[in-house]
Amino acid sequence: MVALGGSDIERLIAMLSRLPGLGPRSARRAALYLLREPQTRLAPLSRAMDSAARSVRTCSTCGTLDTTDPCTICADPERDRGLVCVVETVGDLWALERAGIHRGVYQVLGGTLSALAGMGPDDLNTAPLFARIKAGGVREVILALAATVEGATTAHWLQERLAPTGVAVSRVGHGVPMGGALDVLDDGTLAAALTARRPA
Amino acid sequence: MVALGGSDIERLIAMLSRLPGLGPRSARRAALYLLREPQTRLAPLSRAMDSAARSVRTCSTCGTLDTTDPCTICADPERDRGLVCVVETVGDLWALERAGIHRGVYQVLGGTLSALAGMGPDDLNTAPLFARIKAGGVREVILALAATVEGATTAHWLQERLAPTGVAVSRVGHGVPMGGALDVLDDGTLAAALTARRPA
Repeated sequence: MVALGGSDIERLIAMLSRLPGLGPRSARRAALYLLREPQTRLAPLSRAMDSAARSVRTCSTCGTLDTTDPCTICADPERDRGLVCVVETVGDLWALERAGIHRGVYQVLGGTLSALAGMGPDDLNTAPLFARIKAGGVREVILALAATVEGATTAHWLQERLAPTGVAVSRVGHGVPMGGALDVLDDGTLAAALTARRPA
Repeated sequence: MVALGGSDIERLIAMLSRLPGLGPRSARRAALYLLREPQTRLAPLSRAMDSAARSVRTCSTCGTLDTTDPCTICADPERDRGLVCVVETVGDLWALERAGIHRGVYQVLGGTLSALAGMGPDDLNTAPLFARIKAGGVREVILALAATVEGATTAHWLQERLAPTGVAVSRVGHGVPMGGALDVLDDGTLAAALTARRPA
């Protein structure tokens, strides 16, 4: 390793390069951007990270990350607690929130069943979901899982476990993404889109 | 703006998305990566940034960023102080250091002459270079500036100012990059490579 301006700067570059989306080259660029204005760029980001590290917690109801527990969504009286959307990750929840379609609440599994990744049923955060169902008030569970082998396996497994509870279970539709051209889509998506066809 | 897990988390995402190389999407991914392990990922990065913000300074000799002034390179007794390589940015200096070819010292201009960017001769960090030349001991100045209009203008201007000092001035060679295929190179590079041809 070549010395790039002292160990503090090297450590910063090494840590930035571990972020997803940043390689060694972009980590150096990002570090230079921050180091050029230490007081207006580097120090405020450091404080924001420190503040987030202190305040972040996992919602004990739905499993998302927030600065409060219960989270902003679970605590929101406007949200429909009878409608629970099951997602794999907090990132999926954020994507749905940005779309602004779902007016219910969530359950974040924290993963999908996967023999390769060593994720079994006990590793999924499902207990709060069943507790909520047992406590009453849940009408429908929407499974918003990825259209992958792991996602489908997890959806199937959850559906079987939810059947005895009498709660309605639905899955998100699969098909051609809005604005997506057909000729770049894979065969599986095209097959799903044809199967899910509806009268025009 | 949709609420994504509280204001601390939103602020962190907003600040990360300002880093070069990260857009809103990758900033959210990076934030999630950090927030999933606040104590082992977020807090250490915050501390590394805080430490770098406190310790970073500009070398008063060459203009690079380091935690010491003079910087590690200027303070290194093994470096040839008679050979000064002029670069535009600290990033260029780092690139040359990684290559490990230059055994002399540097002068970081902090920019190039550019009417568009409003960079005039007074905005370039050249005073320490002329002070070093005046103090004696500088044999050669290597101009390692980009092969752009701004880089060439700056090199030409510096060359004129250096001529009266009697110090030898050279420029880095331009041509086909090592490992580079010819058919993807622009005409300017190919022309430079042909002009710079040498007996095989």
